[in-house]
Amino acid sequence: MSTPEVHILNGPNLNLLGTREPEIYGADTLADIEQMCLAAADDLGLALLFRQTNSEGMLIDWVQEAGKSAEVLIINAAGYTHTSVALHDALKALQIPAIELHLSNIHAREPFRRHSYVSAAVAGIICGFGADGYLLALDAASRLIEKA
Amino acid sequence: MSTPEVHILNGPNLNLLGTREPEIYGADTLADIEQMCLAAADDLGLALLFRQTNSEGMLIDWVQEAGKSAEVLIINAAGYTHTSVALHDALKALQIPAIELHLSNIHAREPFRRHSYVSAAVAGIICGFGADGYLLALDAASRLIEKA
Amino acid sequence: MSTPEVHILNGPNLNLLGTREPEIYGADTLADIEQMCLAAADDLGLALLFRQTNSEGMLIDWVQEAGKSAEVLIINAAGYTHTSVALHDALKALQIPAIELHLSNIHAREPFRRHSYVSAAVAGIICGFGADGYLLALDAASRLIEKA
Amino acid sequence: MSTPEVHILNGPNLNLLGTREPEIYGADTLADIEQMCLAAADDLGLALLFRQTNSEGMLIDWVQEAGKSAEVLIINAAGYTHTSVALHDALKALQIPAIELHLSNIHAREPFRRHSYVSAAVAGIICGFGADGYLLALDAASRLIEKA
Amino acid sequence: MSTPEVHILNGPNLNLLGTREPEIYGADTLADIEQMCLAAADDLGLALLFRQTNSEGMLIDWVQEAGKSAEVLIINAAGYTHTSVALHDALKALQIPAIELHLSNIHAREPFRRHSYVSAAVAGIICGFGADGYLLALDAASRLIEKA
Amino acid sequence: MSTPEVHILNGPNLNLLGTREPEIYGADTLADIEQMCLAAADDLGLALLFRQTNSEGMLIDWVQEAGKSAEVLIINAAGYTHTSVALHDALKALQIPAIELHLSNIHAREPFRRHSYVSAAVAGIICGFGADGYLLALDAASRLIEKA
Amino acid sequence: MSTPEVHILNGPNLNLLGTREPEIYGADTLADIEQMCLAAADDLGLALLFRQTNSEGMLIDWVQEAGKSAEVLIINAAGYTHTSVALHDALKALQIPAIELHLSNIHAREPFRRHSYVSAAVAGIICGFGADGYLLALDAASRLIEKA
Amino acid sequence: MSTPEVHILNGPNLNLLGTREPEIYGADTLADIEQMCLAAADDLGLALLFRQTNSEGMLIDWVQEAGKSAEVLIINAAGYTHTSVALHDALKALQIPAIELHLSNIHAREPFRRHSYVSAAVAGIICGFGADGYLLALDAASRLIEKA
Amino acid sequence: MSTPEVHILNGPNLNLLGTREPEIYGADTLADIEQMCLAAADDLGLALLFRQTNSEGMLIDWVQEAGKSAEVLIINAAGYTHTSVALHDALKALQIPAIELHLSNIHAREPFRRHSYVSAAVAGIICGFGADGYLLALDAASRLIEKA
Amino acid sequence: MSTPEVHILNGPNLNLLGTREPEIYGADTLADIEQMCLAAADDLGLALLFRQTNSEGMLIDWVQEAGKSAEVLIINAAGYTHTSVALHDALKALQIPAIELHLSNIHAREPFRRHSYVSAAVAGIICGFGADGYLLALDAASRLIEKA
Amino acid sequence: MSTPEVHILNGPNLNLLGTREPEIYGADTLADIEQMCLAAADDLGLALLFRQTNSEGMLIDWVQEAGKSAEVLIINAAGYTHTSVALHDALKALQIPAIELHLSNIHAREPFRRHSYVSAAVAGIICGFGADGYLLALDAASRLIEKA
Amino acid sequence: MSTPEVHILNGPNLNLLGTREPEIYGADTLADIEQMCLAAADDLGLALLFRQTNSEGMLIDWVQEAGKSAEVLIINAAGYTHTSVALHDALKALQIPAIELHLSNIHAREPFRRHSYVSAAVAGIICGFGADGYLLALDAASRLIEKA
Repeated sequence: MSTPEVHILNGPNLNLLGTREPEIYGADTLADIEQMCLAAADDLGLALLFRQTNSEGMLIDWVQEAGKSAEVLIINAAGYTHTSVALHDALKALQIPAIELHLSNIHAREPFRRHSYVSAAVAGIICGFGADGYLLALDAASRLIEKA
Repeated sequence: MSTPEVHILNGPNLNLLGTREPEIYGADTLADIEQMCLAAADDLGLALLFRQTNSEGMLIDWVQEAGKSAEVLIINAAGYTHTSVALHDALKALQIPAIELHLSNIHAREPFRRHSYVSAAVAGIICGFGADGYLLALDAASRLIEKA
Repeated sequence: MSTPEVHILNGPNLNLLGTREPEIYGADTLADIEQMCLAAADDLGLALLFRQTNSEGMLIDWVQEAGKSAEVLIINAAGYTHTSVALHDALKALQIPAIELHLSNIHAREPFRRHSYVSAAVAGIICGFGADGYLLALDAASRLIEKA
Repeated sequence: MSTPEVHILNGPNLNLLGTREPEIYGADTLADIEQMCLAAADDLGLALLFRQTNSEGMLIDWVQEAGKSAEVLIINAAGYTHTSVALHDALKALQIPAIELHLSNIHAREPFRRHSYVSAAVAGIICGFGADGYLLALDAASRLIEKA
Repeated sequence: MSTPEVHILNGPNLNLLGTREPEIYGADTLADIEQMCLAAADDLGLALLFRQTNSEGMLIDWVQEAGKSAEVLIINAAGYTHTSVALHDALKALQIPAIELHLSNIHAREPFRRHSYVSAAVAGIICGFGADGYLLALDAASRLIEKA
Repeated sequence: MSTPEVHILNGPNLNLLGTREPEIYGADTLADIEQMCLAAADDLGLALLFRQTNSEGMLIDWVQEAGKSAEVLIINAAGYTHTSVALHDALKALQIPAIELHLSNIHAREPFRRHSYVSAAVAGIICGFGADGYLLALDAASRLIEKA
Repeated sequence: MSTPEVHILNGPNLNLLGTREPEIYGADTLADIEQMCLAAADDLGLALLFRQTNSEGMLIDWVQEAGKSAEVLIINAAGYTHTSVALHDALKALQIPAIELHLSNIHAREPFRRHSYVSAAVAGIICGFGADGYLLALDAASRLIEKA
Repeated sequence: MSTPEVHILNGPNLNLLGTREPEIYGADTLADIEQMCLAAADDLGLALLFRQTNSEGMLIDWVQEAGKSAEVLIINAAGYTHTSVALHDALKALQIPAIELHLSNIHAREPFRRHSYVSAAVAGIICGFGADGYLLALDAASRLIEKA
Repeated sequence: MSTPEVHILNGPNLNLLGTREPEIYGADTLADIEQMCLAAADDLGLALLFRQTNSEGMLIDWVQEAGKSAEVLIINAAGYTHTSVALHDALKALQIPAIELHLSNIHAREPFRRHSYVSAAVAGIICGFGADGYLLALDAASRLIEKA
Repeated sequence: MSTPEVHILNGPNLNLLGTREPEIYGADTLADIEQMCLAAADDLGLALLFRQTNSEGMLIDWVQEAGKSAEVLIINAAGYTHTSVALHDALKALQIPAIELHLSNIHAREPFRRHSYVSAAVAGIICGFGADGYLLALDAASRLIEKA
Repeated sequence: MSTPEVHILNGPNLNLLGTREPEIYGADTLADIEQMCLAAADDLGLALLFRQTNSEGMLIDWVQEAGKSAEVLIINAAGYTHTSVALHDALKALQIPAIELHLSNIHAREPFRRHSYVSAAVAGIICGFGADGYLLALDAASRLIEKA
Repeated sequence: MSTPEVHILNGPNLNLLGTREPEIYGADTLADIEQMCLAAADDLGLALLFRQTNSEGMLIDWVQEAGKSAEVLIINAAGYTHTSVALHDALKALQIPAIELHLSNIHAREPFRRHSYVSAAVAGIICGFGADGYLLALDAASRLIEKA
């Protein structure tokens, strides 16, 4: 059987990680996190596609692509989490499970971060664990694939 | 006199039609609908430009283009319907009439679909008739052109 | 096979059409529109019952009657659109499809016109096309009958 | 010149005046008030039509009739004041001025009485003066006629 | 002593019972319920007037009539429950106790059914017991009469 | 018996009448209105104190003074109508009746003008009749004095 | 066949009945009501468990117990009605029908009493009939058992 | 060095797991989950205290105890999540990190489940992964201990 | 005459005083405060019962007990202040005056602390004075007893 | 060391005390209260400035003056409590502690009295104790001075 | 041609500048700013009237005066910005353009500072630039005068 | 020292300036404004990058670029102002000051334009001065650079 594929999509401004407001988002860069994730995916026997964009349209394109080749989608939609019905629709249309991920605990911040259009379209949510959240999400993805 | 031109713009995730939640959106693909529309436009003596994008920015670019070459714009803005002030502004700046179109009856679904930034910037609205809505919209466009 | 029947019901103040706020509702009288509709129904092979009342209770009676003899109901509930749960219930109880119709684009007017109790109980909605909306609705009704 | 006509319309439950919650609405019956108004109209040189109904539809019919024969309409819409968009539309369609009247001070009662769909469609408002409010409204009507 | 009289008033669309959305409202027709009620009233030594209308105005007329001849009023105002200040006023003006009745549990349905203008003007409320609710209401009426 | 006294208090910006937004407030100056009111008060056998201030504190001082020497207070609180709890309290503390007055129909203007802290502390309200409203209010005051 | 069991659970402060605000809750003590209920249950052929607690946790324990031994649960959750999601969850988890009961008409009191977390998790609701409500609820329970 | 201790606290109705609404909460009983957790804690070198209560007060007592002996607290507060400021305060007073856990995706359910008083007082949140969420939370706890 | 009795009840997490967020709640422990209060009560000639619980149900039990033996109740309901209708009801049922007390100024903190179900059921409120507030409350209690 | 100074500022309508709504505000006049306060201040070794104004601007002037010569400010802002951001700003700019005072329990009255712009800018709050509240506030002021 | 006149009005508490919360409002005193403005006005060929008051009524008086002698009004209404309909009305009545000015970025502070009654009545807004904002506003005023 | 760089970013539909709704946005084209700005920047000794896009993602890319090479960012985010949390986050991550700019006075238009996600992430705001606003913003930028 072929290696199951997981896609991790990162939304706007996550390319700034490590420099942007480190007291909220931590000191790891996105490249650091990608390395951690590749190593962990390897341990879990998963193929990993990891990418970032500032564009809502491209994020939607990538969600649609995940629907064609991945077993699980992990998405940190950053600022689009709170405003994008279009992204919600793309996730709703997926026939694979998705996991919502945030570095910070979005429910302990500004009120406008407490509503997520992503949440109602995913299987599960992990937030507040910083870069470790990516590893927890990969572990969760692996468990979802085992059960499928 | 030259053939009047109508543009039909389709927003995010409409490229998935026929596969995405068919109990809501129906079994026709967007290519099927495009064929139906081309035939109908031909019958009505209209030239038709029919396109789709997942990008809000491109949708705005295309609305601006319609303002330069079309007589009527038909727009199914999908998820951007409910969130895009920028799209609202693009439609307000148009000097041709626009028609808002939705496959499903957005007023009978989740509360966040009940508000449309598009509605306040168009002449008329057609929703809930599935793929047939495109034909009704073309008919409405043809009537608007006749009266202009 | 007998001629399929369509009922068009018109709610409060629509008897004033042509005189009441013509910049919003247009210059056609309701009698003009009825003539247009009878001709169009004839072309579509439909029998048409077209009537108007200022009474919410009578509108509900007529919705119930439509449920007994018509294939499709078209309703322009005017002011009751925004306030009548009783009308919503009557439409919900129908076993034929209904179409909501408005002359003006109710979503581009006062806030209290943006909510419709009718919308959640109908198949589709057409608004903003003035008297032409009646013809579009008849066309839509004809398509619904063909598919039934 | 013919005697100018004023219509006074009374809405639901006003037929109970004098018996219903007299601490709020006063001890005069509607017949008493009608007599007072006829006498006052006579003094002011006005012809007066004074009537009451519990039916929203009939109230709308009567507003439309006033539009055909009266110079000013005075309306105490009682409970329909707060809920009837259809009545609002009927008043908006009038080409004569209308006066909103309430026996009690509706702004000092339950919150649901503080919003009036009638207010935005009339020239002026008089409330809280009990039966005397009818006389003040007739006086106001007379002044509006003089200025017209 | 004469037989005490109870009036049961049924509002819009209740004439459709047994056919309309039976999963919500049950399979008994209104005529079935009327028979059950007449039998139960007879057992309780009560005279019963049982009627239905789709008209808000008529419902108000009937509430006023109950005030003149009945000891207790039972009212299932259906859709007018949620929208009628005029009905609220009619009930407030009653000098006999009233009981609000609903077949379904209105507090477990759509949000717009959770507010009742009737509730604040009645002695007690019974809802969610289907046709049996009518019998419970008659029993409650009988107890209210005994205590009066 | 001594001549009963009525105070008319005018709030902020009313000194600009006749020049400020005449399409809303009319062409009469405040001095014109004062003359009209003095004449009318004379006819009604009333002594009249008529004054204006831009200061909320002074308006409250004057309300307190009215409580000591007047039989009725008429107040056009202008902009303070919508924001002043302190004025509400001053009016609540009065032991004579007060009448709220507005030149324009405040319920047909911006939403922030639809709430009045004055309304819940007065006997009655007159609005929308322009300068004539002052005369209607004096007439109402006279009636209140007769009944006291 | 064994005697069917009904549990009546009473929430916080109901142990004060007869002394606490008798104009709202009546003069019967909870012990009086328990006696009335035991007699009525006996007549209906029902075994009755009747208890009261001020503790939300204990109320939840008891709801869970009812799920193991009773055929119907009757619950007057008093103050927890309006605030307890945990109680809502306990009721939702029940596989027997439950009846919500209140002595007073909670919909005619303070706004915070108008929302009930219990309502959406029960079959039916009875409120406003004072101590008689317990008897009506037992009667309703008996009918539910007969139909099961 | 001694074995670090982790406490897992389970709130109301979680003792019903496996029987209560299994389509939402899954088929594992709480005892099954406890066994899974004990095994996993053992693998991670953690001592585990796992308990459940229906009582809000006891849950607070236990949070306070965790503050004295544990390194990390994991809490599935169930229904108290959405309503308990007292629990929020207990968590805020903790000087160890806490993790919020839910079996179901609370953000994809009823609106009243979308607000959590727990969220603003914890480090991170895991929800929607069923029983696996407990294992993910233990893994997250282990990572938090390593970093401390 | 016997020594009048005052009860001071402390709600959830107040047992943590001195350790929990001292920048908000101060450095005194609850035992320190109890000592201060016993001394002050002694000076004022009052018998004092001072206790704390994390349980809402027990707090209600204690409020009911105070109603039987105390002259005044002082309550710092902590987190239950903002959420407990059951506690509100217990206080409403008291026939002695109660005083609401908070260490911190709850109106200068998070929005959810600005509403108190306790406030509407007490005579007076003291907040923001830290441990001194207890002494002020005892002084106030003493004054209330003198006036009774 | 010089005698520390305390300022007590009284806002609009408090000059009416003893006559205005005594069931809410008590029978003491403001002069009575001033005498009580002067005596109490003397006992506490405090110099007292006690004054009242109906003017928001003057109240702000006086708050600024207090900032220059007093150790503590006590303010009963009456109606301006609920509406004055300017007063809030003046209090925020103070470098001495302030105490908010109300005669009545503002949280048990109309909803518009439940929000205070003063609260978020003061150290502590005392309300509902009538004239005694002034003495409690002076005592609290004295304690604040001792600790400073 | 005479030198055009500009008025700069400063509202409540701005007399405290330099001492009040300098982290928000900066270290310049109002006298410093006045000097800067006089110099800048001189450079721009403008006559400048610069004044401050804590009184809402006086601010309105001064706005009215500006309407008589100035070409442009610059207003920093401070706390009255958010609460004064009376000030809004005074500005609406002006026939010269006005500029709204704030030292701090009011949209990045407390929610109650995000709404301005001034904004809807002015030509333009400048905020967040500290004392430099006055110079930018004078520059803007000069440009408005040139274009007039 | 090198010439300091300022970036001016223009969002969706600003490429239509001069043609789109000139009564709101003025008659200058964006190219005209760019010329004006280049000249002014030159006078101020600033290097200027001026660009426009309809794409939210590109706007975010450009904000990130400004963070690398500019001293100040000026942004007219047009329609994205009101809806883009992602843009807010990009601005928050900037380590240079930013200035929000609008041609029209957004606070005097539709309600949905009154909230800006940009405002809370910038130093200052200039709106309502049409094309002149760009020059004021450049001037403000120059002052910010001088002070840095």
